[in-house]
Amino acid sequence: MPAELGDLDARLRVLEAKEEIRNLLQEYRRTLDVRDMRAFSALFASNGTWTGASGTAAGPEGIYEMLTAVLPENPPAPGSTLWHLITDPQIEVDGNRATARSLWMHVRRGDGDTPLLPTLGSYEDDLVVENGRWRFLLRSVSRLVPDDPGEKG
Amino acid sequence: MPAELGDLDARLRVLEAKEEIRNLLQEYRRTLDVRDMRAFSALFASNGTWTGASGTAAGPEGIYEMLTAVLPENPPAPGSTLWHLITDPQIEVDGNRATARSLWMHVRRGDGDTPLLPTLGSYEDDLVVENGRWRFLLRSVSRLVPDDPGEKG
Amino acid sequence: MPAELGDLDARLRVLEAKEEIRNLLQEYRRTLDVRDMRAFSALFASNGTWTGASGTAAGPEGIYEMLTAVLPENPPAPGSTLWHLITDPQIEVDGNRATARSLWMHVRRGDGDTPLLPTLGSYEDDLVVENGRWRFLLRSVSRLVPDDPGEKG
Repeated sequence: MPAELGDLDARLRVLEAKEEIRNLLQEYRRTLDVRDMRAFSALFASNGTWTGASGTAAGPEGIYEMLTAVLPENPPAPGSTLWHLITDPQIEVDGNRATARSLWMHVRRGDGDTPLLPTLGSYEDDLVVENGRWRFLLRSVSRLVPDDPGEKG
Repeated sequence: MPAELGDLDARLRVLEAKEEIRNLLQEYRRTLDVRDMRAFSALFASNGTWTGASGTAAGPEGIYEMLTAVLPENPPAPGSTLWHLITDPQIEVDGNRATARSLWMHVRRGDGDTPLLPTLGSYEDDLVVENGRWRFLLRSVSRLVPDDPGEKG
Repeated sequence: MPAELGDLDARLRVLEAKEEIRNLLQEYRRTLDVRDMRAFSALFASNGTWTGASGTAAGPEGIYEMLTAVLPENPPAPGSTLWHLITDPQIEVDGNRATARSLWMHVRRGDGDTPLLPTLGSYEDDLVVENGRWRFLLRSVSRLVPDDPGEKG
């Protein structure tokens, strides 16, 4: 490929990476909300790590085991179904590695069938290309409100 | 156009499509919030369909007629003005067709001039290029909270 | 550069501009939330203007002076820490100028260590390239709820 085409191609790859990472962040949210924890854990690299209030686990199988052990069911209506809202992320791409930062809120069906927003938190992500796809290398889930670690949010 | 240029062009078209679709989703929100229902209905393809709690209608004129018949006014302050917050969408582009998924919340000026978030819902979209512009072929608006279909949210 | 390459390059520049502007909007939010007002004010062009409930100021130094004079501290937990949630923006790029529109909400740690969303507002932005980077030429911050200008939100 001529040099000028190679330059355009490299710039396109950065933009495509950002779009794929946006989709990855949404897939995390979607699979978590519907409790498809097999699809959820496959969003992590083979040595990818999830760390948050539920603990720390590595690799898709380890993450699957830990989260299915501690995550409550997500009952449909009229249950207190829980969704995640995530904000537009900040993404930095450097070749086959990237970082992303975003905020999230829980939205829960509360008493009287009205929305409650009981939790605000942040995601800090390291991302990596594995087998041609962007995957989480490290997702750190922090809760900002409530601050008290004894609360489950 | 040489093959390599054609490949770059095709990849650019996908990225441009995603940006245009993001803008379309925002225009839907914006025109709805200011009750510019002519501009709103023009966001649909000639055979585009809107389906939700207010019913189902097809084509810009049909959608305009149905929604102007049922949508309440959106009174300015100090009225209970209603806005839509929409989340970053998941978009898949396949040539001149695409799909998008996003979440939305109502934000309303409540008693005491404070924000209320009374409703959570989702959008499921099929999109199509018509006359060179991305348009809704089908927008399905679902309400998640409240679940009770008797509630107007 | 051949004409066809120049066309691809121009289209890439528009997409890259949108990504850089998204990052700029997020940096505004992030630096404001952590009260890094030096980094915050550097997001404005040399003749860039901030206008909102706190007044109007021009240039990074003027904006820094005005906002540090009026902005309250943002105390960590268990204080009433304040964050900004911003929605996916609508961005229009025209060469080295652009416009953007988005909505924002305050999220505050309220009584009982639970999230409160006391304010809804909008951003209207004019943007410009200065020294190769996108910067705010004019950011107009409007509060939608509460509407009463006597309220601090």
